[in-house]
Amino acid sequence: MTHPLLEKHRATLEGALSAIATRGYWSPYAEMPSPKLYGETAPQDGKRAFEAHLGKRFELEQPGQTGWHGGEVSPYGVALDVSYPVCEPEALIDAANAAAKSWQAVGADGRIGICLEILDRLNKQSFEIAHAVMMTSGQGWMMAFQAGGPHAQDRGLEAVTYAWREQSFVPTETTWEKPQGKNPALVMKKHYQIVGRGVGLVIGCGTFPTWNTYPGLFATLSTGNPVIVKAHSNAILPAAITVRTIRAVLAENGVDPNLVSLCVATQRTVTQALATHAAVKSIDFTGSNVFGQWLIENARQAQVYAELAGVNNIVIDSTDAYKAMLGNLAFTLSLFSGQMCTTTQVIVVPSGGIDTDEGHKTYDEFCADLAKAVERFLSKPEVAHAVLGAIQSADTVERIDIANSGALGKVVLASKALENPEFPAAKVRTPVLLACDAADEQAFMEERFGPISFIVKAADTAAAIALSERAVTVHGALTVGVYSTRREVIDAMTEATWRGKVALSINLTSGVFVNQSAAFSDYHGTGGNPAANASYSDSAFVANRFRVVQRRYHV
Amino acid sequence: MTHPLLEKHRATLEGALSAIATRGYWSPYAEMPSPKLYGETAPQDGKRAFEAHLGKRFELEQPGQTGWHGGEVSPYGVALDVSYPVCEPEALIDAANAAAKSWQAVGADGRIGICLEILDRLNKQSFEIAHAVMMTSGQGWMMAFQAGGPHAQDRGLEAVTYAWREQSFVPTETTWEKPQGKNPALVMKKHYQIVGRGVGLVIGCGTFPTWNTYPGLFATLSTGNPVIVKAHSNAILPAAITVRTIRAVLAENGVDPNLVSLCVATQRTVTQALATHAAVKSIDFTGSNVFGQWLIENARQAQVYAELAGVNNIVIDSTDAYKAMLGNLAFTLSLFSGQMCTTTQVIVVPSGGIDTDEGHKTYDEFCADLAKAVERFLSKPEVAHAVLGAIQSADTVERIDIANSGALGKVVLASKALENPEFPAAKVRTPVLLACDAADEQAFMEERFGPISFIVKAADTAAAIALSERAVTVHGALTVGVYSTRREVIDAMTEATWRGKVALSINLTSGVFVNQSAAFSDYHGTGGNPAANASYSDSAFVANRFRVVQRRYHV
Repeated sequence: MTHPLLEKHRATLEGALSAIATRGYWSPYAEMPSPKLYGETAPQDGKRAFEAHLGKRFELEQPGQTGWHGGEVSPYGVALDVSYPVCEPEALIDAANAAAKSWQAVGADGRIGICLEILDRLNKQSFEIAHAVMMTSGQGWMMAFQAGGPHAQDRGLEAVTYAWREQSFVPTETTWEKPQGKNPALVMKKHYQIVGRGVGLVIGCGTFPTWNTYPGLFATLSTGNPVIVKAHSNAILPAAITVRTIRAVLAENGVDPNLVSLCVATQRTVTQALATHAAVKSIDFTGSNVFGQWLIENARQAQVYAELAGVNNIVIDSTDAYKAMLGNLAFTLSLFSGQMCTTTQVIVVPSGGIDTDEGHKTYDEFCADLAKAVERFLSKPEVAHAVLGAIQSADTVERIDIANSGALGKVVLASKALENPEFPAAKVRTPVLLACDAADEQAFMEERFGPISFIVKAADTAAAIALSERAVTVHGALTVGVYSTRREVIDAMTEATWRGKVALSINLTSGVFVNQSAAFSDYHGTGGNPAANASYSDSAFVANRFRVVQRRYHV
Repeated sequence: MTHPLLEKHRATLEGALSAIATRGYWSPYAEMPSPKLYGETAPQDGKRAFEAHLGKRFELEQPGQTGWHGGEVSPYGVALDVSYPVCEPEALIDAANAAAKSWQAVGADGRIGICLEILDRLNKQSFEIAHAVMMTSGQGWMMAFQAGGPHAQDRGLEAVTYAWREQSFVPTETTWEKPQGKNPALVMKKHYQIVGRGVGLVIGCGTFPTWNTYPGLFATLSTGNPVIVKAHSNAILPAAITVRTIRAVLAENGVDPNLVSLCVATQRTVTQALATHAAVKSIDFTGSNVFGQWLIENARQAQVYAELAGVNNIVIDSTDAYKAMLGNLAFTLSLFSGQMCTTTQVIVVPSGGIDTDEGHKTYDEFCADLAKAVERFLSKPEVAHAVLGAIQSADTVERIDIANSGALGKVVLASKALENPEFPAAKVRTPVLLACDAADEQAFMEERFGPISFIVKAADTAAAIALSERAVTVHGALTVGVYSTRREVIDAMTEATWRGKVALSINLTSGVFVNQSAAFSDYHGTGGNPAANASYSDSAFVANRFRVVQRRYHV
């Protein structure tokens, strides 16, 4: 007898199992915010549901509540004024551990069934969540819907699917019968119990509050662990909506809802105390190197799955589609104003220039042409606002200003502030492009989060590939790219990425961009370079989140 | 086209895949040292092969050799006088990394096929290896053959099987086709390359130089990594024979044999430098907490899979087979003089005594009866020597002497030195049994490796279970046991082991012992308590030893 919710969602699970095995295109969650797909009233209902949160207390009925806290500032300048329960971390941990027993008792099939139901409910809330993501992160509407809704759900489902595959390998029991020659066989009955490691802490980021949270959240939960979600202080609402839905589905299914809770920390020390608590056995973190390294150094009682900073880069050797390449790069650099962990920061070009279908282009010509391509792409305000969104943090604005000043390299294209007629208070900035030499590493060899990119002049293509590999190996990267018409260059770049352990996109000139990764097909991060010690998703992302405890006796 | 060696050994691989899924009894390697199974001349051939090493230099043709080193002292007092190549660690690492490329190129199927061939060859060397294990570790002959030969090979094969299952899930390529409504679909070709993390260091122990080395060695190798085997300074020969066979099979199959090498370190600092080398990406370690914790603290560039010390324990509540229980315990405590990471150190008994099929037994009666059972079991010298073997290290002899002195508790049974007529210089010791109160934790709550056990008096069964759980949680354990005729006691103990994450044996009274674990069926360690952060074997033991690097392009 499998759990009824596993039966209900079996087609989804089987589709997902097939997808992670074949890695072709697949998704059960429609990515277009269309009334045809989500229901005629879904867009309005979702908007109203979002608006109903504004100016209110977001009730979660969690234990140990001591007060309320809010303070999210929308990058679009919209007043949010939502406040969230502040709870004693110790109370959340105690309640989580108390709830864990019923979660273990549900069994792997029950856990997976309930997680699939949760994802289905979250999918139905995609419009509400999209507005929450947009208004807290600064993403444009379409990205907020897709990345915040169905694509995040895809990544959650992907983690659940790996968790199911690994857990389903463990039989609940067996009969072990060892022949003893002419004597009777030794016979034992053995039982294998899957147990979670303990409380999982999932720490979200400000730019992708669901997409970067769901993998760790669902990997931890579906492998039998309680979860405490510590949202980014400026992107609490998407996490709060998610946690409320999870708690509701748990309660409906007879599981203590305190299994999953939201932690709103008014001070960094609260998060630090939680992260180093003896009961916390795993931490999923997306964010800065400083806090990520702090976690790895200090939260020694926990397994830390961390996505940190990197220096994503593209090597340009040659192309037979110059315009299309420039267009592809312009979109990549502009999307969400470069506030993606996958956006290209460094474009390496040989000093001798590049061969293209429009003739040889010098390094300077390439710089000018890329600048023009970005300007052209953003020339229509409605396109610009839809693609750029708004700047999430004041730190990013400051980094843009520094880049604009010329302090980091020759300004090929200056960032401009745009006015968004719909959101007059929104902080909107176009990309800044800087030209510099391969020797100017102090400028480009560290992550400068935001729409700041460097066109780096290398001696030749071989030097460009070597620079790319070193950036990956020493500083990490989630994405690299190469443009070349020459087999040997692509082969050399491929081998460099095998050594550096980073995903490679080759000659992207149409509707796929280096900063996009598709669940079930593209691994997000390899877990093998400093930008991330784990990957969304693979077996390693789930297999060590649970343990098997056996017992045996003679029969 | 799969690799010919994978085809050759396909039946073995398929049997192993089925075994890890169903976890019934299975092994492809005969555990009896029988000429019928291994060939008429196998025993003599193996003995001669072992003897041929004595007093010689063990040639391995490794790079960077600077000299020779030996110095193994046999616990049986036999002169060994084998010397092994001492090589520059840097040279071993450089050669390993140079060899890694060809290993990656072989592909997962080639790696698995070659590993299966290596295991088959090692199986054919079981007699030679058994003599080497016996003479370096002090194990008795039967254990040296079984644990050193086929059972170690089983654990190696088990790791290879998990490695194959996880790697076989990763398709080499796919076509990703995303519908675009009325527009043509986006189509990409994607390739997925499995790459090892880098050099794996496998650090062996002195008591089980193959059984505790093969899981990490084969897990690392089969997932695409080079391996440096650092043998225990007193048990080099079994590792050297293994490494030579691996190098031979690699070379026969066109792989640079420097992929796997033996490191003989004349000083601890050499091992430390190797363990913290930037190129070393994984470490498998079995041994003391002191060096294990040093590795975890210092080898931060590597993933550390560590099996450390623990306080294995058994709770005795009641039994309906008193004699059989005592007999089972007597064997457990005597086997290899308790020099197993799985031997019971603490037997917890309620102060009110226990109900048995022979009437109620007081705590003192139980102590006396267990002492008598051990004495009786070891009363025939030929049985005693076969089971006890010899004491591997002077530290263990010293610990026995301290226990015998009464410093750690009341001596219920003193350890005796026995003379082995076949090996007059052998250090043979029988078990020492101590009685103490639950309050005397400073005596029994740390690992006292060797034939030293405590019969601890607890207030009642509930207190005994609580003590067991605390030992597991705080100090770690690989095995616990319970004897009870009461369902509720077994249930309470079961739940305690779920919380503590330790394997439980219930009412063992016949031919299975708490310190034995069978590959493919019993997980050795859960990876969830301080005694071990990994398990032989599960998916987590292999899945993070390789990474997947993808590349994608439009078609």
